[in-house]
Amino acid sequence: MAKVAVLGYGTVGSGIVEVIKTNQESINKRAGIEVDVKYILDLRDFPGDPYEELVVHDVDVIMNDPEVDIVCEAMGGTGAAYAFTKTALSKGKSVCTSNKALVAEYGTELLELAKANNCNYLFEASCGGGIPIIRPLRTSLSPEKVVAIKGILNGTTNYILTKMEQEGADFDAVLKDAQALGYAEANPEADIEGHDACRKIAILSSLGFGKTVYYKDVYTEGITRISIDDFAYMKQLKATIKLLGMSKEVDGKYFAMVAPFVLTRENPLYNVEDVMNAILVTGNTLGDTMYYGAGAGKLPTASAVVSDVIDCAMHAGIHLACNWEPEKLPLSSLDDAERKFFVRVAGEDAEKIKAAFGEVKMLEPVKDGELAFVTPVMTEKVYREKASDFQVISMIRVEG
Amino acid sequence: MAKVAVLGYGTVGSGIVEVIKTNQESINKRAGIEVDVKYILDLRDFPGDPYEELVVHDVDVIMNDPEVDIVCEAMGGTGAAYAFTKTALSKGKSVCTSNKALVAEYGTELLELAKANNCNYLFEASCGGGIPIIRPLRTSLSPEKVVAIKGILNGTTNYILTKMEQEGADFDAVLKDAQALGYAEANPEADIEGHDACRKIAILSSLGFGKTVYYKDVYTEGITRISIDDFAYMKQLKATIKLLGMSKEVDGKYFAMVAPFVLTRENPLYNVEDVMNAILVTGNTLGDTMYYGAGAGKLPTASAVVSDVIDCAMHAGIHLACNWEPEKLPLSSLDDAERKFFVRVAGEDAEKIKAAFGEVKMLEPVKDGELAFVTPVMTEKVYREKASDFQVISMIRVEG
Repeated sequence: MAKVAVLGYGTVGSGIVEVIKTNQESINKRAGIEVDVKYILDLRDFPGDPYEELVVHDVDVIMNDPEVDIVCEAMGGTGAAYAFTKTALSKGKSVCTSNKALVAEYGTELLELAKANNCNYLFEASCGGGIPIIRPLRTSLSPEKVVAIKGILNGTTNYILTKMEQEGADFDAVLKDAQALGYAEANPEADIEGHDACRKIAILSSLGFGKTVYYKDVYTEGITRISIDDFAYMKQLKATIKLLGMSKEVDGKYFAMVAPFVLTRENPLYNVEDVMNAILVTGNTLGDTMYYGAGAGKLPTASAVVSDVIDCAMHAGIHLACNWEPEKLPLSSLDDAERKFFVRVAGEDAEKIKAAFGEVKMLEPVKDGELAFVTPVMTEKVYREKASDFQVISMIRVEG
Repeated sequence: MAKVAVLGYGTVGSGIVEVIKTNQESINKRAGIEVDVKYILDLRDFPGDPYEELVVHDVDVIMNDPEVDIVCEAMGGTGAAYAFTKTALSKGKSVCTSNKALVAEYGTELLELAKANNCNYLFEASCGGGIPIIRPLRTSLSPEKVVAIKGILNGTTNYILTKMEQEGADFDAVLKDAQALGYAEANPEADIEGHDACRKIAILSSLGFGKTVYYKDVYTEGITRISIDDFAYMKQLKATIKLLGMSKEVDGKYFAMVAPFVLTRENPLYNVEDVMNAILVTGNTLGDTMYYGAGAGKLPTASAVVSDVIDCAMHAGIHLACNWEPEKLPLSSLDDAERKFFVRVAGEDAEKIKAAFGEVKMLEPVKDGELAFVTPVMTEKVYREKASDFQVISMIRVEG
């Protein structure tokens, strides 16, 4: 029997218990062993809860119980969650989590600790909620040299951008609407400024490229400067605007960033709408594969944690190899990244634009007093130099 | 060291050798052991081929070599491939394949044989080419009770339907074009009549629902009766037509079928175009996840086979549990399946249609002498009874 302790009985923690109890029979069958929730750690009591008798308040009860093989960390944050994860792994207890902040901050160290103690630190739920992406990167794509990862990794911002496009509503109005619907936090900064997507692309890049990508090294822009006027131009381009986390290798140089991008209809990510997430992974022999689903939500996230629990139960005493080495992936400066740019400038004439940027594609202005265009491919550095002669209203990078 | 033998040095077989050699270093690292191609079985010689010295003509050389741990069956068909697979598994050699015909016909037996001999029969490449779908069904979705699998599983037919829609060209013209481009076989029957998709949905359903779905029991229709007139109506419905393989559980009843379906824009499969494939899997707690990529092609297919090779190398002497039991999944008759139907009838008036079918949605006719409509939800049996009073030009089932 595999005994499980769930740390934190909030949304994800209670979801984990619910998924295990709902699908208990098939989970046992898949794991090849009975999977049993023995403890739930929380500071609160839960009178009337069907599992109230499993609740303990002292983490040492769990850590000192040799029967507990698997710990689900569903506390969030990088404080107690970090301490408890280290203790569990040190004692050879595998840890499964959805805590992207912790994985992005301490993943390298915790994976090494798991390896040293012949157990596992698994985090399928940390990126893309219920979408299987971490395990495919670890296993299905194991023959591949990953060359690019591009994802819509944050449901809140994707919801906001979708509504701005579909309803022509401006950012602030849609954000308020998203908050009312529970799709955005009261303090939405982590989502709208791209910090959440940044942690996720750091985790995915570390696994994809096999060396540590630290989230603080990933250039990050949010969506707060995107306006309905930007969207008005997208119709002319048969395109939309999405917040992407992306990393890629180009001629041996690695780039990682989070920013809004112009995506044309041909892009498989173009149609990922509302709160859905999707991740496009390019392998050197496989080409493109895409993984799509709900990027958040109690049960999808919990299901992903439980898939890790089953993996741990099936591999008791075996450390599952993970292509994420402590060595840092050398990231190149954004200055050297090459792409097209969608640009709106105030009060200029087309000739000056063409003289500066070369073979631009001019768009039909949607407002008086501005011109909009798409540049040819150039580096960020060259773009910035050229753009410095103009009064730029808006610039959005073009993907592909 | 894990010694590999490749049976058949055609497109997939040579792709397998190419993927292993191209990514040799990272493959060894991921497998935790050196993966080495020792033999290539083919009736032909390959003078000048970089691996010509590995070619053998006698399968017994491979079967009798105790060093060979893993056999990649890339011969196709259900004759010699079946015999060689049985021999290899009986000797405890794991077998990896892209051979959907063999898996669909003998998968149950071969999986039991692998289990009995503590080795593995893996077939990631049999469905969706390079798209990771078999392994996610086996592992990532292990906490889930799968309730539906719906897929665009055949690239040839998807290419034909995409071109018919985009170019308004008729079936025969597009088929010829597809044959010229190498997207369709000289004898296209297996694709256009749905037989290929049928084998794939049988395999996916067996894994998803945990019991054997035999492909001959799956109701199958191809795309040969789809016309450009049908597509003309799709604009009014903001929909398109796709050949779907699907299986689902509804109130304890299981249904499986292959047929063209009307898909509206909200469906994640709507935008899967040209030769791309995608599979939408619904779990009881996870909800929808979708897997997208190239459904065929030498290197994507080979990469999927090699992902299985790595799994076998990592799990030498361990049979990986597979949720596909010999017991047959009881399939319900299509008669009891409920859905809407898109129907075109000759020379009728709307009143008779409404009297027969109830609250239909009438469409603007695109041709003289016909009326087109979408029925309310009803069973296939009820639809057929009502339709027998009309001269039906075309009927396409509506998904969702």
